Amino acid sequence: MRRVYLDHSATTPVHPRVAAVINRYMLADFGNASSIHEFGKTAQQALRWSRERVAELVGASEADEIVFTSGGTESDNLAIKGAAAARKDRGRHIITSAVEHHAVLHTCEALEEDGFQVTKVGVDEYGRVDPEEVSEAIRDDTVLISIMLANNEVGTIQPVTEIAQAAREREILVHTDAVQAVPQMPVDVEDLGVDLLSLSGHKMYGPKGVGALYIRRGTRLLSQEHGGHHEKGRRAGTENIPGIAGLGEAAATTMEELPQREKHLERLQRRLIEGLLQVEGVHLNGHRRERLPNNVSISAAAIEGESILLGLNAEGIAASSGSACTSGALEPSHVLLAMGMSHEMAHGSLRMTLGRDNSQEDIDHVLEILPPIIDRLREMSPFEIQ
Amino acid sequence: MRRVYLDHSATTPVHPRVAAVINRYMLADFGNASSIHEFGKTAQQALRWSRERVAELVGASEADEIVFTSGGTESDNLAIKGAAAARKDRGRHIITSAVEHHAVLHTCEALEEDGFQVTKVGVDEYGRVDPEEVSEAIRDDTVLISIMLANNEVGTIQPVTEIAQAAREREILVHTDAVQAVPQMPVDVEDLGVDLLSLSGHKMYGPKGVGALYIRRGTRLLSQEHGGHHEKGRRAGTENIPGIAGLGEAAATTMEELPQREKHLERLQRRLIEGLLQVEGVHLNGHRRERLPNNVSISAAAIEGESILLGLNAEGIAASSGSACTSGALEPSHVLLAMGMSHEMAHGSLRMTLGRDNSQEDIDHVLEILPPIIDRLREMSPFEIQ
Repeated sequence: MRRVYLDHSATTPVHPRVAAVINRYMLADFGNASSIHEFGKTAQQALRWSRERVAELVGASEADEIVFTSGGTESDNLAIKGAAAARKDRGRHIITSAVEHHAVLHTCEALEEDGFQVTKVGVDEYGRVDPEEVSEAIRDDTVLISIMLANNEVGTIQPVTEIAQAAREREILVHTDAVQAVPQMPVDVEDLGVDLLSLSGHKMYGPKGVGALYIRRGTRLLSQEHGGHHEKGRRAGTENIPGIAGLGEAAATTMEELPQREKHLERLQRRLIEGLLQVEGVHLNGHRRERLPNNVSISAAAIEGESILLGLNAEGIAASSGSACTSGALEPSHVLLAMGMSHEMAHGSLRMTLGRDNSQEDIDHVLEILPPIIDRLREMSPFEIQ
Repeated sequence: MRRVYLDHSATTPVHPRVAAVINRYMLADFGNASSIHEFGKTAQQALRWSRERVAELVGASEADEIVFTSGGTESDNLAIKGAAAARKDRGRHIITSAVEHHAVLHTCEALEEDGFQVTKVGVDEYGRVDPEEVSEAIRDDTVLISIMLANNEVGTIQPVTEIAQAAREREILVHTDAVQAVPQMPVDVEDLGVDLLSLSGHKMYGPKGVGALYIRRGTRLLSQEHGGHHEKGRRAGTENIPGIAGLGEAAATTMEELPQREKHLERLQRRLIEGLLQVEGVHLNGHRRERLPNNVSISAAAIEGESILLGLNAEGIAASSGSACTSGALEPSHVLLAMGMSHEMAHGSLRMTLGRDNSQEDIDHVLEILPPIIDRLREMSPFEIQ
């Protein structure tokens, strides 16, 4: 059976070049970067090299603006809790959006228990935040705005540059969760004007268990993990050198491959969207143009996304309903609901996220397999297409 | 030049069996454990298998008592802050020791800013905590005791079982940092009577960037990282499956190899200690019997440990002064000072930590190289042996 993996926004396979680097630092150059002998020095060199590559990938002017973490979730937690703790005497109001990843939403909710107030701005039917609405939500005690760069479920790209403009005039920190954006589109912290930016290794053909947070020079954050003086006191714990070196290599690979990768993904994406929109009752979720080139999110009226998934899985095709983190949950996606979708349509959502390893044949295969599955499920459905 | 690595308490090379497992889950079975397709199921199986192996390694009765983290530091942070947050209405007093790892000490100090009070019990000249002293430090508002199982600098094993007895009678939680102990000696949470136990992958021939926290069934902890509902809500973030599977394999390997490993290390340790004690002015730090079989910590009067290290490094031998995390720091070890050592002697400390890959030839080589280095440094030293 042909296996087709269309769940790259959940996680990606590790790039062979990245795996080779990880093996080197697991087996041969395995030292602790805090040690002062040769094994330690080699580890320090890997740490510095990776920090420079990740800085370069996001357009940071200094390598020291990058702090390595255990992944996107920790980066989001450190950015939001670290900034909130450092600025709480100035104010306790945070602005975010209704379509953020749970690593942002639940972190903001945790801060509410510490006396912070959180405004969640809504989105339009395409999942876009209105920069005007963010501007209007700013109060005298606003200390942080956290708006993702691209949505993990529907792929919609947010107008972060416009949002950051209004914020920076008023000395409010801006954080963006760029976990989904970084592997698929050019990302530059200067163009965006953000102070904090999260990224994750395993979404960009790098290792799981490692991520990074860009912290603009001069931005004060309180460390959320206590111990040794690693990462200049911003994140304690022995540096995960194999993982970090792997992330550095993934950053280098992304910079090299991105122009070609974008074109390749856009071609596949167009083909898949055009094919699917010919199926009766299928609707494209998210923005038509302002969207990641690897995201195809659809809703199919009158059937359950979960049932489509199981049908696809039986045919060797891996896709997702909404985000991976909430797979198996009974509630419909908070993102689709925020976009004004009905519970029924939201339950019928299916996310296919393409990767560098997918081919045109994969797409054609899916376009053969998927429509009959939808037809079959619809015949069994008690609902009717509205 | 013969290279001899004697810094296994800083970090270990990854066991070849562990590396093979990590490669499998990076390249072939790379799924996200939250996904409901086949790739996801394979990841879930790895997660369950590893949880069972780690539970077995520490004698936990249920696999669900194990939570995976990003390493020893995060495990210590989660144990202490998580327990403190869950119990703060009952009391705000914590007992720890003066010789803990900074991941414990600095976490306790961070809690002091939140209104907790911390009692640090001292140690004797061998680095041992007196259980009586811990008992006497217990107050009505004591909610947590955190005492390490074996010290990372001098290898001294603490009487955790005795300490836990007094605590449990009074319903006080007991945490132990077993990061150094787990790879070198049998560890059993029932024998120890602890509620929380930290361990780390890269100290046990497993991967960096992954660790675990044993949480006794029924022990309430507040999660310190917010996001998806991973690890039953106790630790958010996409599970690091390659790292976790690697940790599981490292646990399995440790269980298989431990009896042989202990004997091998004890033999090498004895040889190294006996050889070094013949050098004038060399003193063994830590307890003679209650010590990890892989730790040889010495102090050499009238010379700097750092200088010995550099001399050894020039000869291809990797050792450490004190812990890796504080290497390069100017302050003498807080552990040696707590043991009553003078600043001068503490500055002359050298830690050699043996591993499964070391041979008798390695030890004999070190015993040839090291004494002349000490002699040479002493000739240059302005101090005299007292």
